[in-house]
Amino acid sequence: MKTVIIGASFAGVHCALRAKQLRPYEEVVIIEKEETLGYIPSGLILLLNQHIKRLDEATFISKDALEKKGIHLILGTSATKFNFSEQYIETTKDRVYYDKLVLAMGSSQISQKLVSNHPGFLTYKKKKDSELALEKIELSKEIAVIGAGQTGMELASALVNKGKEVTLIESMSYPLYKSFDEDVIGPLISEMSQESKLTTYFSQTVKEIKGDNLESELTIVTQQNTISCEAAFLSTNVRPDLSLFEEQLDYHTDQTLKIDAYFETSQPNVFAIGDLVQVPSMLLNQSMYSPLINNAIRSGQICAENLEEKKVAYQGSIRVIGTYVFGQYLASCGLTEADFFLYEEPIETLILDIPLSTIEQDKKIKIKFTYNKNTKILLGVQMISRENILEKINRYTLAIESKMTIDELAKKDHFYHPLYANPVSDII
Amino acid sequence: MKTVIIGASFAGVHCALRAKQLRPYEEVVIIEKEETLGYIPSGLILLLNQHIKRLDEATFISKDALEKKGIHLILGTSATKFNFSEQYIETTKDRVYYDKLVLAMGSSQISQKLVSNHPGFLTYKKKKDSELALEKIELSKEIAVIGAGQTGMELASALVNKGKEVTLIESMSYPLYKSFDEDVIGPLISEMSQESKLTTYFSQTVKEIKGDNLESELTIVTQQNTISCEAAFLSTNVRPDLSLFEEQLDYHTDQTLKIDAYFETSQPNVFAIGDLVQVPSMLLNQSMYSPLINNAIRSGQICAENLEEKKVAYQGSIRVIGTYVFGQYLASCGLTEADFFLYEEPIETLILDIPLSTIEQDKKIKIKFTYNKNTKILLGVQMISRENILEKINRYTLAIESKMTIDELAKKDHFYHPLYANPVSDII
Repeated sequence: MKTVIIGASFAGVHCALRAKQLRPYEEVVIIEKEETLGYIPSGLILLLNQHIKRLDEATFISKDALEKKGIHLILGTSATKFNFSEQYIETTKDRVYYDKLVLAMGSSQISQKLVSNHPGFLTYKKKKDSELALEKIELSKEIAVIGAGQTGMELASALVNKGKEVTLIESMSYPLYKSFDEDVIGPLISEMSQESKLTTYFSQTVKEIKGDNLESELTIVTQQNTISCEAAFLSTNVRPDLSLFEEQLDYHTDQTLKIDAYFETSQPNVFAIGDLVQVPSMLLNQSMYSPLINNAIRSGQICAENLEEKKVAYQGSIRVIGTYVFGQYLASCGLTEADFFLYEEPIETLILDIPLSTIEQDKKIKIKFTYNKNTKILLGVQMISRENILEKINRYTLAIESKMTIDELAKKDHFYHPLYANPVSDII
Repeated sequence: MKTVIIGASFAGVHCALRAKQLRPYEEVVIIEKEETLGYIPSGLILLLNQHIKRLDEATFISKDALEKKGIHLILGTSATKFNFSEQYIETTKDRVYYDKLVLAMGSSQISQKLVSNHPGFLTYKKKKDSELALEKIELSKEIAVIGAGQTGMELASALVNKGKEVTLIESMSYPLYKSFDEDVIGPLISEMSQESKLTTYFSQTVKEIKGDNLESELTIVTQQNTISCEAAFLSTNVRPDLSLFEEQLDYHTDQTLKIDAYFETSQPNVFAIGDLVQVPSMLLNQSMYSPLINNAIRSGQICAENLEEKKVAYQGSIRVIGTYVFGQYLASCGLTEADFFLYEEPIETLILDIPLSTIEQDKKIKIKFTYNKNTKILLGVQMISRENILEKINRYTLAIESKMTIDELAKKDHFYHPLYANPVSDII
């Protein structure tokens, strides 16, 4: 069996690794249009925050590591045309036949509405874009970030750390809207309001980006404001680019490909993973577009288990994230208030301010539990703290995945140490 | 209903809190022989490590906090005699009647074999003992610690931090034997061997402690060695003191009280919790003495749920611990190799060295998984790292409590961030 994977994204690479692990006899080929692979999309942010010294270090896997596993790499090569009935792909080099095809080209932050060919209009998910962005950042003093989701916030925070004057523009009324409720995010808002180098415009939608005169500054126009800056990053919603498939594959209105529970598209033997597809919500009776790296990796791994024979239906995601922005660690999994209208039973929430540990009473964690009011089954957890509490979200994720009630969870064991833990469960 | 709890230990206090939370109408009384309450038994260690400035800060709950919950405290008062048929206790003050009696006096490190009235022979679980120990430590240069379990190791590590010449004596061949296998503990052993101020004697049992001449040094005699020191701590196994009950309660050969699944002793309406009792192992078909604070707290909480009516059988413990000694964070839950002979099916183990995160490749975590070879059900996890990975053990604890297989666990979701997490599950 020959499996061809298009795109050395997190999804594509982990699909290849799992396929080779499960079926060492399988021929696994990755076709990637860049000459290099394994770049971490937030590499620029890691560099700005001085966690790495060069963009090269922002690598989650190397060419060597993949080749050692027996995975065949065809780099610097783009798929140009798909013939699904004959099971081959035309590329910028040779024609490639496949038994199973996995589409893993990922998504991009290109907006059809907000376009500009001004050199200050930047993206950074690809390494070469990060390199260009880095040069421009060095030369710029005033930089705008459009979109205060996770990547927009991480970028804005990193640029402020770097000493830039940052303008952050977001259409929702507060940041990180997809994973946090406004009553949890309070400490972050107050932290941000004290950043003298940060200007925020919430509840403002960008209408237009002007920068036709390539020598001058960029101008960002919202309903209420006109903002001038030397550089601007678009960190709004990402979407896949389906133009290559020429309507041969069924897709949703949000431009994601339709798949079954085993990641197979409307064409037999053609699978799609990562940012090309929606993921079923484990908690709601529907699928959602949730382009997180952990979702991408799991989609690749589970797709690999189903390539030869459909065996493992994907159980879905509960959208677990963890990040650090503006001095605050934030983690979330499961439902937020924005999802409540999609859930068919009554929901209750509880917000607690708990200390980090018996001894560290002054270090606080704000934590919000969301659960089914009738059954008490846990549905969501949100946390914010100045301390690194990110790892805690993984236990709550497991509890939600196991359909545990808050009462059951409160009775479960955990280690106790007066310096590192609280004596009782977070929720009692 | 009047519930009388003897001992303001972690177990006693959390039993009282839960009883009052569940049944606000209930009269709850705690009788405690010390004048103060809420002292954390490792307060001395916290102070030596400069996590607190005064022993007063080593407090897990205050008198005020308990009284505000409506719990009646009788401090500085000892139970002297129990009349179980008439349901009353004689104390050093008044006679106290009860409807339900909860015994929560805890344990102590007093050995019947190793005794000495030398002023350098120290304990520290009680605050006044910690105060005396602290004075003696200040005056001493050479200090011995007998027992390299969790408390002995924490104490030895703290004394070395404080600049003392420490001799650590342990009857087993390596430290932390109850929770770790020798193949996991390697990095700790090598760390300890580089401590110039630490001398270790493993596989040596203390035969005698000589110090009759109160002016001179203490002498600790093992089979192989004779060790002189100015002060010595006994950190060997703790046990309850049952002499007060005058054989009115059934007990095991290890001096723990016999209880049913609801913490009731052989006398009706008399319950025993915390370090007075064994806990059922969730993984083995037997009970074990596992005097951990988290076990004590849970025993108190679950006992409280059963005082009025037996409702919630205790599911047992998987012995979860987390600590930091000699520059290494260590955490463990579930079975270790020492338990294997008690488990009736074949067991397999897997040791991995994983990086802390995609970016932090040089920071390592050594992790050992123990699981049922046939069913793949997870039975134990041990971790060691220079980084604070303690919180991770709580997720594995939940997985073991949920009887999850390693394959199921590998498919569960977790957050991804290149700086704080790995892209794939620890075990794949």
